[in-house]
Amino acid sequence: MRALVFDVFGTLVDWRSGIARAFLASNVSGDPEELADAWRARFWPLLAAVSAGERPWANFEELHDAALNELLAERGMDLPTVERARLLDAWHQLDAWPDVRTGLDALRGERVVAALSNGHVALLVDLARHSDLHFDCVLSTELTRTYKPAPEAYLIAPRLLNLEPAEVMLVASHPLDLKGARRAGLRSALVERSLEHGEGSPVREDPDADLSVRDLHELAQRLPA
Amino acid sequence: MRALVFDVFGTLVDWRSGIARAFLASNVSGDPEELADAWRARFWPLLAAVSAGERPWANFEELHDAALNELLAERGMDLPTVERARLLDAWHQLDAWPDVRTGLDALRGERVVAALSNGHVALLVDLARHSDLHFDCVLSTELTRTYKPAPEAYLIAPRLLNLEPAEVMLVASHPLDLKGARRAGLRSALVERSLEHGEGSPVREDPDADLSVRDLHELAQRLPA
Repeated sequence: MRALVFDVFGTLVDWRSGIARAFLASNVSGDPEELADAWRARFWPLLAAVSAGERPWANFEELHDAALNELLAERGMDLPTVERARLLDAWHQLDAWPDVRTGLDALRGERVVAALSNGHVALLVDLARHSDLHFDCVLSTELTRTYKPAPEAYLIAPRLLNLEPAEVMLVASHPLDLKGARRAGLRSALVERSLEHGEGSPVREDPDADLSVRDLHELAQRLPA
Repeated sequence: MRALVFDVFGTLVDWRSGIARAFLASNVSGDPEELADAWRARFWPLLAAVSAGERPWANFEELHDAALNELLAERGMDLPTVERARLLDAWHQLDAWPDVRTGLDALRGERVVAALSNGHVALLVDLARHSDLHFDCVLSTELTRTYKPAPEAYLIAPRLLNLEPAEVMLVASHPLDLKGARRAGLRSALVERSLEHGEGSPVREDPDADLSVRDLHELAQRLPA
């Protein structure tokens, strides 16, 4: 196993707290965490429509924008452009979970460490800079114009790193993502992010994953040398 | 100016010393530095043939391999596979010039810092790891299947970073590269690498560059805040 590639949203960064904070600072009325969940919930069907070929290619920025439009329209709210931009920009400034910066550094000693996210490169670069995360390279499914869990979206990693799929392990907190990686021939490790959806988040398990760990430091300890 | 993108071979890493060391450790007879120059000289026409569409797409590894074949054939030499592989591998282990690691860190504070090389991603990742260079992301013209100085090869940087071409500056030690960047609408900075071709290297000047500097620390000082 020569490279670890990391899902980003939920796995490395806490999108929900960051987006809730942005709603709190905005003039949008309502429970900030419910608003964050509602925005995210409207995002997934748009991404699925792109994957199904029912919607032209659009990156995360464009899909977040469209999902925000839907959310505001449904609730009969309007927002000035500046404030909409501030909400969109919050996706570029999400904090990493506390173990991530040092965990990536520990893992990077032995193996190539890369992002592999559905987020576009510009967004991933901003997030890495925001939390001072050091990746050996930032890979995005944008480069394939597909989204995970499509096989091509995973295979960009071994292809660009000049490795076999089985030499690459996806680390993610979502079983659907890990399953997609395995289907493409990669290995998989589940990192439990028990706070991704706040207190009382659903417990995730993936019996088919090579490893299940609580955080990146446990991953560093448990990977074979 | 929001991002700095760096040429790698010659600009950030000292390819000639590393390749000469690899020849010295090999069973290839001859002056190691002359051999390094001869290998490099046979590489350029192959790359030009790819750019001209006269040769199918091939990455640096494949072009280095073909150029080494030519060199050895011309000199009537044969090498066991293991030793050929060792020479090819030397391109993955070139040392950075002494100012590069700390210079990139200084520059990365204010702006996005990325590689933008004709080398393929896997090779750039190995070089960054070898010299502990921290890029915000590693961009390669491999992603466009063109080579610099083709405009598309430069435009991948603003496109993936979501910037205007004029918000991106190419830093390189080769006037041809800087000229190509300007033609694509990027800004350009010449870094003088007076030892790229050993003692007595040709002096490079580029009066059209936005800046000319001796090393990356001078670049950090002279860039507008």
